[in-house]
Amino acid sequence: MRKRDRRFDRLRTFSGRLDRQLSTLRGLSQELPAADPERGSANISEEDTDEDHDVPTAGRYFAALEGAELDTLRSTEVAVLPKDELWPFLLRFPISAFGMCLGVSSQAMLWKTLESEPSMAFLRVRPAANHVLWWVSVALTAVISIVYLLKVVFYFEAVRREFHHPVRVNFFFAPWVACLFLVKGVPLPEWEIHHVFWYLLMAPILCLDLKIYGQWMSSGERRLSKVANPSNHLAVVGNFVGALLGARMGLRELPIFFFAAGLAHYAVLFVTLYQRLPTNMQLPKELHPVFFLFVAAPSVASMAWARISGEFNNSAKLLYFISLFLYVSLVVRVNLFRGLRFSLAWWAYTFPMTSVALATVLYASEVNNMLTQMLAVGLSGIAVVTVIGVLATTVYHAFVRGDLFPNDVSIAITQKRPKFSNILAHLRSPTPASSSSSSSS
Amino acid sequence: MRKRDRRFDRLRTFSGRLDRQLSTLRGLSQELPAADPERGSANISEEDTDEDHDVPTAGRYFAALEGAELDTLRSTEVAVLPKDELWPFLLRFPISAFGMCLGVSSQAMLWKTLESEPSMAFLRVRPAANHVLWWVSVALTAVISIVYLLKVVFYFEAVRREFHHPVRVNFFFAPWVACLFLVKGVPLPEWEIHHVFWYLLMAPILCLDLKIYGQWMSSGERRLSKVANPSNHLAVVGNFVGALLGARMGLRELPIFFFAAGLAHYAVLFVTLYQRLPTNMQLPKELHPVFFLFVAAPSVASMAWARISGEFNNSAKLLYFISLFLYVSLVVRVNLFRGLRFSLAWWAYTFPMTSVALATVLYASEVNNMLTQMLAVGLSGIAVVTVIGVLATTVYHAFVRGDLFPNDVSIAITQKRPKFSNILAHLRSPTPASSSSSSSS
Amino acid sequence: MRKRDRRFDRLRTFSGRLDRQLSTLRGLSQELPAADPERGSANISEEDTDEDHDVPTAGRYFAALEGAELDTLRSTEVAVLPKDELWPFLLRFPISAFGMCLGVSSQAMLWKTLESEPSMAFLRVRPAANHVLWWVSVALTAVISIVYLLKVVFYFEAVRREFHHPVRVNFFFAPWVACLFLVKGVPLPEWEIHHVFWYLLMAPILCLDLKIYGQWMSSGERRLSKVANPSNHLAVVGNFVGALLGARMGLRELPIFFFAAGLAHYAVLFVTLYQRLPTNMQLPKELHPVFFLFVAAPSVASMAWARISGEFNNSAKLLYFISLFLYVSLVVRVNLFRGLRFSLAWWAYTFPMTSVALATVLYASEVNNMLTQMLAVGLSGIAVVTVIGVLATTVYHAFVRGDLFPNDVSIAITQKRPKFSNILAHLRSPTPASSSSSSSS
Repeated sequence: MRKRDRRFDRLRTFSGRLDRQLSTLRGLSQELPAADPERGSANISEEDTDEDHDVPTAGRYFAALEGAELDTLRSTEVAVLPKDELWPFLLRFPISAFGMCLGVSSQAMLWKTLESEPSMAFLRVRPAANHVLWWVSVALTAVISIVYLLKVVFYFEAVRREFHHPVRVNFFFAPWVACLFLVKGVPLPEWEIHHVFWYLLMAPILCLDLKIYGQWMSSGERRLSKVANPSNHLAVVGNFVGALLGARMGLRELPIFFFAAGLAHYAVLFVTLYQRLPTNMQLPKELHPVFFLFVAAPSVASMAWARISGEFNNSAKLLYFISLFLYVSLVVRVNLFRGLRFSLAWWAYTFPMTSVALATVLYASEVNNMLTQMLAVGLSGIAVVTVIGVLATTVYHAFVRGDLFPNDVSIAITQKRPKFSNILAHLRSPTPASSSSSSSS
Repeated sequence: MRKRDRRFDRLRTFSGRLDRQLSTLRGLSQELPAADPERGSANISEEDTDEDHDVPTAGRYFAALEGAELDTLRSTEVAVLPKDELWPFLLRFPISAFGMCLGVSSQAMLWKTLESEPSMAFLRVRPAANHVLWWVSVALTAVISIVYLLKVVFYFEAVRREFHHPVRVNFFFAPWVACLFLVKGVPLPEWEIHHVFWYLLMAPILCLDLKIYGQWMSSGERRLSKVANPSNHLAVVGNFVGALLGARMGLRELPIFFFAAGLAHYAVLFVTLYQRLPTNMQLPKELHPVFFLFVAAPSVASMAWARISGEFNNSAKLLYFISLFLYVSLVVRVNLFRGLRFSLAWWAYTFPMTSVALATVLYASEVNNMLTQMLAVGLSGIAVVTVIGVLATTVYHAFVRGDLFPNDVSIAITQKRPKFSNILAHLRSPTPASSSSSSSS
Repeated sequence: MRKRDRRFDRLRTFSGRLDRQLSTLRGLSQELPAADPERGSANISEEDTDEDHDVPTAGRYFAALEGAELDTLRSTEVAVLPKDELWPFLLRFPISAFGMCLGVSSQAMLWKTLESEPSMAFLRVRPAANHVLWWVSVALTAVISIVYLLKVVFYFEAVRREFHHPVRVNFFFAPWVACLFLVKGVPLPEWEIHHVFWYLLMAPILCLDLKIYGQWMSSGERRLSKVANPSNHLAVVGNFVGALLGARMGLRELPIFFFAAGLAHYAVLFVTLYQRLPTNMQLPKELHPVFFLFVAAPSVASMAWARISGEFNNSAKLLYFISLFLYVSLVVRVNLFRGLRFSLAWWAYTFPMTSVALATVLYASEVNNMLTQMLAVGLSGIAVVTVIGVLATTVYHAFVRGDLFPNDVSIAITQKRPKFSNILAHLRSPTPASSSSSSSS
C-alpha cells in the first residue's frame, strides 16, 4: 500500500518539498527499476526534480495534449503517472466537475423565471420546480466543492497544474458563477437577498479577471493569440452574470463596472475566436459542444443590460439577437456533434442553452406575442431536454460503465518533451530498450 | 462541333456523372494526345476523375489565382479549359455581373430619396428620374437573373466552383441585395409594399449568412483569418439593407435581428481587414476599387439604425461618420486607383458611394444647414458621375473592344497543383517536352 | 571643426542633395579609412548614396532596434553616426520630448477641473494651481516647439527618419494633443474660447489620422498586424481629446465625427494589442510604462461622450469603467515596472493617469458619494505624485547625470542590414579585420 502511493507523491501536498524529493528518489530507486531497469536512476531523478519545482509551460500543454478540451495525451508523449491503473479518486476529480453545478443551477434559475415572468404566466409553472432544482443544486454544489477542497488540501500540485492548463483554467470561474446562479435562483425575490453575498462572490471573480486578462495582454507565454479557445467564454461570462445579479439586487454602479470589463474582453475574445488565427493550434477542427459557450456571453449580457437599463431596450436586443443568431448557427450544424467522447465538461455546455432560453423569456415579456412565447417555450424545452440527456449520459457513465472519472492525463504530462529513447522504451515496453537509449544519449 | 464541346463537359450539368466520366475519358483520348502525346493517358484520366467529384479547396484557389479579385491565373498554373479560344457565353458570365444590378438599383433608390427627403426639396428632383432608373434596374436584374439561371441549369459545376471561390462566393449575396434595393426604390411609399416581399428576400440572405459565417468560425479551410478580403463586406451589408428596408416597411423586431447579426460580423470583419493579418495572402498589396466596399456597411448600417430608432441619433451618427472617414481616407488616395484592368465587379464598388450619398441625405435632413446640404449634393454628384463613368467603360468594353466577358479562369483551375512536368510542357508547348517529364516522374 | 561636422551631413537639410553626396564622398574618403582602412571606399560610398535618397523601411527599424520604444541598437548592428561621442543637440532632441507637454498640460487641466467640478468643491482648490501650471505648460510647449522646429529646419532628414520610425511616428500627434490640452486647460470657461483654435488644431490631427490609419489598412510595409504597439494609442487619443474639447466649446457634429473615427480605430487597436499577434515582434515581453497608454483612450473617450451626450450616461460609464479596469490591471502588476532605463517618453505615459483621474472627477459629479469622491482624490493624488516623480527623475538626469538627451540611435540605423564583415570589423575594431571581410565577400 505505501509503496504504491509514492508514485503520486509529486502531486501530493503534505509530502513537503525536501521530504518529497527524498521520497521521490527513494520511491524511484525502489520501483522504477522494475519497470525499465536499463535506464540509470540518476538521470531520471534529475528530470523529476526539475518537474517538481515548477509546472509545465502553456506551450508544453499544447504540445503534449490534444482534443477540444486538451485532455488526451498525444501518442508521442509519456505520462508522469501510471496510465494502466486507476489513480486516487481526488486526482481524477477535475475542476470541470463544477460544470454540473452550472448546468443544474441555471435550470433552477430558468424555472424560477418561467414561474415569475408575466409572459410565461400561461404555463402556470409551480414554485415547486424551482424549489426542488434549487435544493438539488445547493446539495450538488456543496458536495462538489467539498470534494474539490479536499483535492486542494491533499493534492495542491494537481490543482496548480489544472490552473496552468490553458483550457481548465477557465473552469476556475465555474464555482463562483454557479454560486451566482444559486443566489439568482434562490426561491425569494432577488432584492431581498443581502448585498454581502454579491460582494463575496464578485471578489474572487475580479481577482481571476485581473489574473487571466492580464495574462492575455502582457504575458508572452499565455497571450491571447496563443491560448484563445471557446472555453475562454467562461472567463468572460462571470462578469455578465455578476452584473445581472447585482442589477437585480438593486445595485447600480458596480454591475456596470463588471459589465464594462466583460464587454471589452468579450469583444476581443469574440473577434479572436471568429478569426481562428493560425496560431490558435488548440481550436478543434471539428465542431464540439464547447462551441455552445459562444451563445452564453451575449445572452447573459443582454439580460444584464436589460436589468441595468431597467428595460429590454435596443442595445439589449442587439445582444440577445447576436446570441440567437449564434445559437441557430450551431443548431443547423448539430449533426456534426455526433460521435464524440463524453466528458464531465459537457455539463458546462448546457448552461448557454438555458441562458438563451432565459433571455428569450425576458424578451417575450417585452415583446409579447404568440411567436415570442412559442420561441421561449421551445428554447426552454430544448434546454430541459438537453440537461436531461446529459444527466442520463452522466448516470450511465457513472454507474453502468463506471468511467465518469477517468485518469486525468491533463495533469500528468511531463514538464519537458520526452526524450526519444523514453518514447521508444514506452512503445516497446516488454522488450529491453537498451540499444535505442544508448544510441540517443 | 461535338468534339469541341466535350472539353466543357466537366462543368456541364446534363452530361451526368457516369456519362460525364466516360465522355471525359473518351474526349481525352481523342484530343489531349494531340496537345502533348508524351504523357500517358491513364495518368491524366486519374487526375481528371479526382477533379470531377469535388471542387478545389480554398487554399487551391489562393495558390492558383492572383489579383484583388482572384481572377488571374498565376504563370505557373495550367487552366483546365482551353485558354486560347473563347468559351461558351454562359461559362464566361460570372456571378459578379449582379454588381451591375447593385449599381443601378442603388441609383434608383438615391433619386427616390433626393425627391422625397425634405432637406433636398430645394433640388426639385422630378419623380421621373426614379421611375426611369427603377424600370431600367428591374429590366437589368431580370435579364441578368435569367442568364445566370441558365448557367445554373446548364453549367451547375461552374456555379459550384464560383460558390467555392473565396471572393466570388460573396457575390452570391448580390442578387438578393439588388432585389432589396429594388423594393426599397420602388416608386411607392415603402410602407405600402406587402411584407411578404421582405420575408421572401431575407430568407436566402439568412441561409447564406448561416452558411458563410459558419465557415468563418468553424471551418478549417475557409476560416476568416484565411479568406478575409474586402469583398466579404458584401456578405455583411445584406443584413443592414434588410434591416433598413424592414424598418421602413414598419417591421420592428426582425430588422433588429438582422442588424445585430450584421453588426457582430461586421465588427469581426472590420478588425480582421484592418489588421491585414499575414495569413491574408489574397489581400491586394495596392489599393483597388474593391476597397470602396469598406464604406458600404457602416453607411447602410447608419441608415438602418436611424430607421429602427426612428431618428438619426448619436449611434447612427457614429456609424455614418465612420463611413465618411473611410470614404475620405480612400478619396485622398484616389490617384493610386489608376492603371487597373476593368472588370464587371467594379459595378459592385459603385454602390458604396451611392449609399454614403444616401446616408448623407438622411443626415442632412436631421442636421439641416448649408454645409450638410452641399455635402449631400456633392456626394450624390460623385456617385452619379462614377456610375456614368463605369457605364461608359462597360459600354466601351462590351461593344468596342468586345471583351466584357473574358474567359473566366477562376472556375478553370485544376484541383491539384500542376506537376512540374505539365508546367514545363505548357511553357515549351511547341517543342517536345519528353526529357523534362521523364526526369520528374 | 568643419571636418567633424560632415559626418552629420546626411541628416542635415541645407547641405543640398548633390552637394551632400559630394561632401559625403569626400568626408568618407578623409575619415572612414582611419577607422577601418581594409574596406574599399567605393563599396562604402555606394551603400551611403543608397541610404541617402530614402529612409529605412519599417521592417528595417524592427530588425535593427529593440526595446519597448525601439530605441536601442541591436548588438549586430552598426550605427550610421558615431556612437562614442555626443552628437549635435538637435539630433539628440527626439519628438517624444513633446511627452513633457502632455504630462504638464494635462496637470493644468486636472487642477482646473478639481477647482470647477461641484463634486470636488470640498477640496477648495484655488485657481492659482491651474494658472501656474497652465503658464508653465505654455512656456514648456513653446520652448520644445521652437527647438523641434529648429530640428525640422536644420535636420529635416532626421525628422523624416523619426516620422518613419514605427514607435516615434505616433508622437507626432503629441504636439497637437498637448495644444488641445492647453486650450482645454486655459483659465477661462471653455465656451468663451474662439472656435478657430479648435479648427486649427484638429486639421493636422485629421491629416495625420488619414495618413497613419491609411497605412494600417492599405500599406504592406506598415500594416497594423506588423506595427501595432501601445504607442499607437497616441494616434487614437487625439480624436477623443478633440471631441471632448469641441463638445465643451459648444460644437455639435464635428466632435461626433472625431469621436467616431477614434472609436472605430480604437476598437481595432484594442483588439490587436490584446491579441498580441505573433507578428507583433516589437511588443515588449515585459511590462513597461508604455502600457499605461492603454488607459488613456477609454478615459478620454468617456469624458468626450459624456460631454457630447450632455450627461455621464451608461455608454460613458462603460468607457470609464473599461479604463478603470485596465488601470487596476496595470497597478496590481506595478512591481514589474522596476529596473527600466528612464527615457523622456515616460512623460507621455503619465498623462493617462491624469486623464483617468479627470474622468473620475467627472464621474464623481454624476455619482456623488463619499466612495467616488475618495476615488477621485486618490487617483488625482497618484497622478500628481507620478508627475512629480518623473519630474524629479528628469531633473536628476538633466543636471546631475547630464544624460537626458542621449544619442538618438533610432535615427541612425543603416538602411540595409550590415554585412557580416562590417559587424566583425565593428566588434574587433582595434585589430585588423582583413581575414574575416575577405572570407565573407
